[in-house]
Amino acid sequence: MIRKGIFLRYLTAGESYGKALVGIIDSYPSGVLIDIDFINKELARRQKGTGRGGRMAIESDEVEIISGIRKSYSIGSPISFLIYNKDWVNWKNIMNISQDGSCENKEEILLNPRPGHADLTGFLKYRFDNIRDVIERSSARETAAKVCVGGFAKIALNLFGIKIYSYVTQIGPVSFEDKIKLEKETVKKIEESAVRCPDEKISNKMEKEILKSKSHGDSLGGRFKVIAVGVPPGLGSYSQWDMRLDGRIAAAFMSIPAIKAADIGDGFSSASVSGRNFHDEIYYDEKSGFYRKTNRAGGIEGGMTNGENIVVGAVMKPIPTTRKGLGTVNIQTKKAEVSLKERADICAVPAASVVGEAVLSIEILNAIQEKFGKDNIDEILENYTSYKKYIKNIEKL
Amino acid sequence: MIRKGIFLRYLTAGESYGKALVGIIDSYPSGVLIDIDFINKELARRQKGTGRGGRMAIESDEVEIISGIRKSYSIGSPISFLIYNKDWVNWKNIMNISQDGSCENKEEILLNPRPGHADLTGFLKYRFDNIRDVIERSSARETAAKVCVGGFAKIALNLFGIKIYSYVTQIGPVSFEDKIKLEKETVKKIEESAVRCPDEKISNKMEKEILKSKSHGDSLGGRFKVIAVGVPPGLGSYSQWDMRLDGRIAAAFMSIPAIKAADIGDGFSSASVSGRNFHDEIYYDEKSGFYRKTNRAGGIEGGMTNGENIVVGAVMKPIPTTRKGLGTVNIQTKKAEVSLKERADICAVPAASVVGEAVLSIEILNAIQEKFGKDNIDEILENYTSYKKYIKNIEKL
Amino acid sequence: MIRKGIFLRYLTAGESYGKALVGIIDSYPSGVLIDIDFINKELARRQKGTGRGGRMAIESDEVEIISGIRKSYSIGSPISFLIYNKDWVNWKNIMNISQDGSCENKEEILLNPRPGHADLTGFLKYRFDNIRDVIERSSARETAAKVCVGGFAKIALNLFGIKIYSYVTQIGPVSFEDKIKLEKETVKKIEESAVRCPDEKISNKMEKEILKSKSHGDSLGGRFKVIAVGVPPGLGSYSQWDMRLDGRIAAAFMSIPAIKAADIGDGFSSASVSGRNFHDEIYYDEKSGFYRKTNRAGGIEGGMTNGENIVVGAVMKPIPTTRKGLGTVNIQTKKAEVSLKERADICAVPAASVVGEAVLSIEILNAIQEKFGKDNIDEILENYTSYKKYIKNIEKL
Amino acid sequence: MIRKGIFLRYLTAGESYGKALVGIIDSYPSGVLIDIDFINKELARRQKGTGRGGRMAIESDEVEIISGIRKSYSIGSPISFLIYNKDWVNWKNIMNISQDGSCENKEEILLNPRPGHADLTGFLKYRFDNIRDVIERSSARETAAKVCVGGFAKIALNLFGIKIYSYVTQIGPVSFEDKIKLEKETVKKIEESAVRCPDEKISNKMEKEILKSKSHGDSLGGRFKVIAVGVPPGLGSYSQWDMRLDGRIAAAFMSIPAIKAADIGDGFSSASVSGRNFHDEIYYDEKSGFYRKTNRAGGIEGGMTNGENIVVGAVMKPIPTTRKGLGTVNIQTKKAEVSLKERADICAVPAASVVGEAVLSIEILNAIQEKFGKDNIDEILENYTSYKKYIKNIEKL
Repeated sequence: MIRKGIFLRYLTAGESYGKALVGIIDSYPSGVLIDIDFINKELARRQKGTGRGGRMAIESDEVEIISGIRKSYSIGSPISFLIYNKDWVNWKNIMNISQDGSCENKEEILLNPRPGHADLTGFLKYRFDNIRDVIERSSARETAAKVCVGGFAKIALNLFGIKIYSYVTQIGPVSFEDKIKLEKETVKKIEESAVRCPDEKISNKMEKEILKSKSHGDSLGGRFKVIAVGVPPGLGSYSQWDMRLDGRIAAAFMSIPAIKAADIGDGFSSASVSGRNFHDEIYYDEKSGFYRKTNRAGGIEGGMTNGENIVVGAVMKPIPTTRKGLGTVNIQTKKAEVSLKERADICAVPAASVVGEAVLSIEILNAIQEKFGKDNIDEILENYTSYKKYIKNIEKL
Repeated sequence: MIRKGIFLRYLTAGESYGKALVGIIDSYPSGVLIDIDFINKELARRQKGTGRGGRMAIESDEVEIISGIRKSYSIGSPISFLIYNKDWVNWKNIMNISQDGSCENKEEILLNPRPGHADLTGFLKYRFDNIRDVIERSSARETAAKVCVGGFAKIALNLFGIKIYSYVTQIGPVSFEDKIKLEKETVKKIEESAVRCPDEKISNKMEKEILKSKSHGDSLGGRFKVIAVGVPPGLGSYSQWDMRLDGRIAAAFMSIPAIKAADIGDGFSSASVSGRNFHDEIYYDEKSGFYRKTNRAGGIEGGMTNGENIVVGAVMKPIPTTRKGLGTVNIQTKKAEVSLKERADICAVPAASVVGEAVLSIEILNAIQEKFGKDNIDEILENYTSYKKYIKNIEKL
Repeated sequence: MIRKGIFLRYLTAGESYGKALVGIIDSYPSGVLIDIDFINKELARRQKGTGRGGRMAIESDEVEIISGIRKSYSIGSPISFLIYNKDWVNWKNIMNISQDGSCENKEEILLNPRPGHADLTGFLKYRFDNIRDVIERSSARETAAKVCVGGFAKIALNLFGIKIYSYVTQIGPVSFEDKIKLEKETVKKIEESAVRCPDEKISNKMEKEILKSKSHGDSLGGRFKVIAVGVPPGLGSYSQWDMRLDGRIAAAFMSIPAIKAADIGDGFSSASVSGRNFHDEIYYDEKSGFYRKTNRAGGIEGGMTNGENIVVGAVMKPIPTTRKGLGTVNIQTKKAEVSLKERADICAVPAASVVGEAVLSIEILNAIQEKFGKDNIDEILENYTSYKKYIKNIEKL
Repeated sequence: MIRKGIFLRYLTAGESYGKALVGIIDSYPSGVLIDIDFINKELARRQKGTGRGGRMAIESDEVEIISGIRKSYSIGSPISFLIYNKDWVNWKNIMNISQDGSCENKEEILLNPRPGHADLTGFLKYRFDNIRDVIERSSARETAAKVCVGGFAKIALNLFGIKIYSYVTQIGPVSFEDKIKLEKETVKKIEESAVRCPDEKISNKMEKEILKSKSHGDSLGGRFKVIAVGVPPGLGSYSQWDMRLDGRIAAAFMSIPAIKAADIGDGFSSASVSGRNFHDEIYYDEKSGFYRKTNRAGGIEGGMTNGENIVVGAVMKPIPTTRKGLGTVNIQTKKAEVSLKERADICAVPAASVVGEAVLSIEILNAIQEKFGKDNIDEILENYTSYKKYIKNIEKL
């Protein structure tokens, strides 16, 4: 995949306790005014939430842009950035780049793989002799780079009037099932909630659940929704399997560490409803043109956006690293052991919802560039406007 | 995407009532003995199931291979194939390739878009004046070509001892929640069931539900599971977002028409279980090496296969085309209408589960070629064996 | 590569003596009026030229379009096509798809690899036991499919006012060095020449050279130029290595069988000229805007089109199959032998120049879709017009 | 392209006077011992050569690796690196990332585009109002990052016994036409020559030519060859156009700034030689197996390596920036002007030959991973050895 074109694509790099995360964003349009504070706020949003581990107390992520922006404007060249790991100073020796290939201290060698993580398979696949070499990259710390990429995407989408929101619908056994309207007040509540849930009472319950889990040395997963408002119809295509936007969005979400399920619209429940009760009937009035009164499709029909809100749901499994550990086996001795305990979160669902915003933003900007061109933001906006004019024309009586 | 490499990739083409579906499979290994009967049986499996519409009575899909195979063996060249549409003879005029760009008869022009389908958006996106030009390609008829590609993949996977199964777990309100073992007897029951469900009683209930839905002029969706047995650990990678196998599998499933949700393992329910109760603890004995007693992860940890069965679940929305139609608007007159009624299935969940087998097979063969080479099947098998020997060595006490 | 995006990409399939060549073109814009005669004329142009072997007397290539076009208009769906091999009837047994994996007759097994061809390496790479399995696909017969894809591209480019020409500049020792103007008269001369050279005298010399070579049981290579007129500035980009249009064009040309060198503009000779004498100085007048009096850059500066004609030169090595054969070794016996003699051309430079037109057309249409959108031809043309208006505005005093 | 698979791919970023160049290398195998000094020596080799401008006196490139290496070994995670621009401190204000989108000083605005460079087209394509925004990224400074990527590739190739060399065959009017043998002595001479030419006398002539050109305020181009020794047969494939290794190599070379032509083997001259005199006849003896006495094909037949040395030639146009300037037009005033004069090289052919080594190394490592797997160096080497054993077996009498 790696962005299926010569429009918006990105690579990230960086170990969890290495010096920095690194990202390169390629084919970002020129002419976009970049607000670095906004990117940093996005990074901060990812770090928040009840249930984060000790690491988040140390880090306070800030992006350093190295290229692609000059005097606050994007110049069409690859944007590269660093997010320094403050904790690196404490890990310099273990994470040393050079050290002449010398052997490691025995006590630094990790051999008790965590169930639910990349540890055992990564060790075998890459022929390592220390699980350290797996977990540094398989760590969800990488998502900070993703949120940074998403921040750039959001800034561009904003110019098209497209906004991206998210909220948490479940943490462990506590769930929030109400349909919400994305009004200012609701968004404010989400952002103020320690678990990104718009309902204060349920928020509190969720927090309690997390604290309980913490006290048990355990961890929790959950569910969240990401919503894009203002997306035009016609992004993606039904014409070849790998162009369908639902597939591309699903890939983006299921590539976030710990996400085990994703749906679009009322996807999870769509099995139970009959066709005549599920599909979003089409209406028309002169002002709105064609429109729907429901959005069970979650904004995607036939692999394309249909002009309604894109609604993506994701399910996150509980964090595999737990204080009490899990039963495992020492790779060398083959003796039963308790899994290794890197410092970790109890629950990262609120953070994951912010990562979800990032990946949805990236996919949408990519699809916009695919349809409307990719070079300069004003040019893209002109082409976009001319497309909307065409549709308005069809919609006229 | 289009297969993320110079290993196994494919394109399909073909309209629903056109002369034929066409496919090209690129980078299929040389030296594989191809059993065309097997491919045709796969095509037949896709056509079966209670709830299929009148079209399936007309078609009896058979593949014609044009290239890439000589004297029954694959030769490493692109495999191309045709699946003729028998119904085409009745549509020759409407689907005529040439006809000198002349205007269409008014009665042939479709303008009442179906909710839940590509109709309205496709019409706008591609600037058509007849919905016919959308629905021919957005039709799920394309999945016959996919099943054909999957058939080739399965033949190769079989040489690695990898088998792919599927069964239906829900149709409309009737669901089947039991965990099953993939024993011969169970597989036989699945294949004999008219709805691909291993439980006879529930099968019957599902069938009845479909018939009831038919009599109401309505349609149904459902859920199914696809399982791969015998997959080695270490396919996919955590190291870059677009290499994670869960993301690649999710993209493949969510690109099947009408699939609105997908999970891996116990994905949908993983939100509710705590970490210490969710993750599959690691065990060891001399005979099996490292192993698990549970498989809630569905065979994927850290974006890689972990050696356990890959288990993918998918949710299919109800078919958007219904005999009674749905409320819509004529694109030209803007008057409220009932949606157009192409001949269609009532329920295609059993068929979709066969398509799911195909796409999972393709993804796994692709990932195998990525890890073990792609040119010749014996060479790939040698590299595969040598990898398994390496793992066995680690697993030895 | 396979077209670096979700715009124009294609795969071909088909063996030289198989039933047919097959192609799928993906992401061709909707709304283009397709003149099938034009495509067939392109196929005929590829078949012509002094020096073609006996095969071209048998074949008279004609395309059958299977999908992607309805009532003469492209519908945005994948275009698939077949070009039947008339000679197949004589090869049915040897090229049989099925035949139950039975052994081949000894006399059908080819073991004397041709120097200069894929024979020996292909045999080793794919673990064959008959060179037949290599040469069927490595044959330049594949270029018929390429010319077909290029024909579709040309039809679309024509709507942007972009025309593609080619002519032969050398065959064996005879070369034609004059700079030409692409006037009607010149183009007519090229098309009428049996070797696609605009100069009648040199044409005759080239023909004689080919006949001489034929009588010696030998073969010839040569050089040709392909030129695109009317290309706007700004296709491709300097911003990432794989976006540079010169690299993409070079890949397309060097992927044509037997092409061993390619240049852009005065590339081959650019080493000898100083900077102040090489680069195309920039001029301005109100009517033309910015313009050049020379075009040594061949229309590409900084990896982008600069608005001047794109001029690509290619060098073709002599055909590796010769009647007198070349020294080789039997793969099994290891005895010195004379290389195998499939029926072949003496010289295919004129044909290759037509293939060159095709690949350049494909690359340019791809780059246009990348910059201006890809879905519908009218939409792309609107965006293109609006871009040209922007440039005109800059160019105004 | 961006590396056509999920094996070795890379992106670079960074402006010429920005803080640093940045690169991410993805899918580099684990287990490779990385000698950072070697990488730095490669960077130094690129900076050398008579004819480099003032910039090279300021810079002394050194890589800082941020990720992907731990204790000197690659760990399969993306390798990211920075190469700081020492000159940045003098450009901090002009290259400021933030500065709140404020207007630029008039004197900082460049409006006289250089013929032969991206300046004019880049300005139009990306809708800039200062040529500065083009030239920072279109600068050949980017090739330092490429050489760094190539250095990593070389380290891995070395473990397969594959070595990459280059030398200069022409600078302006002075050319060196001898065929050379890549013996130690010759390689030493190349490395000691100020213009990377193995012949001392011609080296001196080339140097004089450069100094003459400098004194005239002019610039020079030239030609160079890059050679890979020890490459196994069977990399690349004839089976689909975008898999042909000659096309992939050509794309890599023609994507190096200022390269206007490329050939493989005796490509440029292959037009003039007859088939029976051009192709490399095949011989056999028990010790060497199949072999050739000539290598006019330059190691590539049928789009695949054939086991002989890969020989790539490239032609570099003269540097477009010259002290005396070239005739151009002010984009705003439309008045005739002399082109802008960024500090630049007089001749960079020796440097380009080092860049050529890098891109050839990258393509070969990529093709090796495609054929033999990509994860761990020992695994790849095992698969490679097993492939060579298979070939040896065929070669046995």
